[in-house]
Amino acid sequence: MPTPLAVALGDPAGIGPEIVAKAWEKRDALGVPPFFAVGDCEAIEAVWRGPVEAIASPGEASDCFAHALPLIRVGGGCRISPGAPDLDGARHALDSLEIAVGLTRSGAASGLVTGPVSKSQLYTIGFTHPGQTEFVAERCGVSGDMVAMMLVGPTLRTVPVTVHVPVRNVPDLLTVERIIAKARATIRGLQRQFGIEQPRIAVAGLNPHAGEEGALGREEIDVIIPAIERLRDEGFDIAGPYPADTMFHERARQRYDAALCMYHDQALVPLKTLYFDEGVNMTLGLPIVRTSPDHGTAFPIAGKGQANPGAMIAALKTAASSAHRIAQA
Amino acid sequence: MPTPLAVALGDPAGIGPEIVAKAWEKRDALGVPPFFAVGDCEAIEAVWRGPVEAIASPGEASDCFAHALPLIRVGGGCRISPGAPDLDGARHALDSLEIAVGLTRSGAASGLVTGPVSKSQLYTIGFTHPGQTEFVAERCGVSGDMVAMMLVGPTLRTVPVTVHVPVRNVPDLLTVERIIAKARATIRGLQRQFGIEQPRIAVAGLNPHAGEEGALGREEIDVIIPAIERLRDEGFDIAGPYPADTMFHERARQRYDAALCMYHDQALVPLKTLYFDEGVNMTLGLPIVRTSPDHGTAFPIAGKGQANPGAMIAALKTAASSAHRIAQA
Repeated sequence: MPTPLAVALGDPAGIGPEIVAKAWEKRDALGVPPFFAVGDCEAIEAVWRGPVEAIASPGEASDCFAHALPLIRVGGGCRISPGAPDLDGARHALDSLEIAVGLTRSGAASGLVTGPVSKSQLYTIGFTHPGQTEFVAERCGVSGDMVAMMLVGPTLRTVPVTVHVPVRNVPDLLTVERIIAKARATIRGLQRQFGIEQPRIAVAGLNPHAGEEGALGREEIDVIIPAIERLRDEGFDIAGPYPADTMFHERARQRYDAALCMYHDQALVPLKTLYFDEGVNMTLGLPIVRTSPDHGTAFPIAGKGQANPGAMIAALKTAASSAHRIAQA
Repeated sequence: MPTPLAVALGDPAGIGPEIVAKAWEKRDALGVPPFFAVGDCEAIEAVWRGPVEAIASPGEASDCFAHALPLIRVGGGCRISPGAPDLDGARHALDSLEIAVGLTRSGAASGLVTGPVSKSQLYTIGFTHPGQTEFVAERCGVSGDMVAMMLVGPTLRTVPVTVHVPVRNVPDLLTVERIIAKARATIRGLQRQFGIEQPRIAVAGLNPHAGEEGALGREEIDVIIPAIERLRDEGFDIAGPYPADTMFHERARQRYDAALCMYHDQALVPLKTLYFDEGVNMTLGLPIVRTSPDHGTAFPIAGKGQANPGAMIAALKTAASSAHRIAQA
């Protein structure tokens, strides 16, 4: 059996525990790769009646995965109210993430899958990273600027250059250097984690109509085009800047392996419009494989049995195939 | 036969003439409503071999529509090179628009459909409006702030609060008053032009995750929520602000009649990702009906016979049904 994946449950009051349990239930039907969960046992018990087996180390996961959901316990003894997050839960989510990252870095897990957390809860307990991605990058000793967040759907991959920042700050954060760094991380990730030798990158403009030759904004001329030209000089297959609204329809998606986007929603809106229940968030540029389902904690439906495990299952499969590809290389 | 629609051809070197001719060819097969074109005869002849009949006034269109494409000529005698726009072409596009607007205002045409123009060409000849929408609004004596641009697809309608402005300027352009004006224009338009008595409006946030309670931007708290609350106090069915990336998937689209978006690409990306070949741009808040196909001049494919008339046909049908609804009211 292959080395299992480590799955941090995310906020115990969100839908993370439920979708992890549902993913385990589908292990045979959908070919979900072996994994173990890291988090509150109570969070799973609050929403699921299936078998959970506490394990002390990842090595035990393979033995029990066929008959029970393997769990490395964090916290314990807390009452969990699905849909009602609290600070203890946020602390356990952070502890689970920390442990799952460590086990993946050590090689005991083949890749890391992270469940959804509440950023506002994490900020309240003093979490200083914009999101889980930046936290994982730091724990791996990699600058946040050198990693890239890739959203993966069946026919679309997008990478935002800026991520969890106010739209007001985006124009000044777009620099030639930052765009080049994200493009390189994207290209390397497509080669290493997806096996695409010569990745084709399409770059979005920032402004309406990609600035309409400067009439609707200067960032394309001042920053984006110079970055594209430098990347092209390095021999990369990189095109644009394109008006964002012309890049994501079915025919357009066939022309590139990943779209490099200038801000969060430019990358996320097309992906989630098309693939709301199966989008995967993958971090490129890390020494480990890391994915997550591309949705939030969904507190309003937590504990009601309604959560769709599609994106969690896609995140598990994407992580496993990526880990396998790296191991073979 | 109903009063015909007036169709301004748009830039004569773009795909406008071709998609108008192709729409006429499909008049019986797809039930395209009667219309007449306004523009260069040479622009149509350069890309199409079918019958064109020059008419002097809209009243003649109905008689010839069954056997020839009715055309009110503008310009004339110019050599047109499809794909190679020039300033004469831009002038003719503007003249065509002006005439088509006038004929619609007078009631001789039941609605206005505008073909794609090159804004950079228009700016070069001194056009001072951000786009055709604002020009039409001015010619109708309506402030640009009071009209709204609605993008219409089979299962999605979106309205951007700010349109042809650099992203850098968007945050400061978002005011409570502007959001309320666009929401009111949207609601009135849905009632008047689509026959929806109690329209349901979903409002997008500006920032990632709709600002995550202020951590990723303040515009939701400072501007968007106050605007929503005032509209709700007026009795409107208006919800949000929602994270933009959660608003446009299939289930989410069923919860509202129109999505009010904060900027151009937030409204255009989901619409064109889903409906690239059939998106309609409709102007709400005018005394006339006005639609256009929601795509550009596509100069690179002009004259090659490849242009898809789907969006032009959808624009004609949407304009006719809207004009019919208003006439019946």
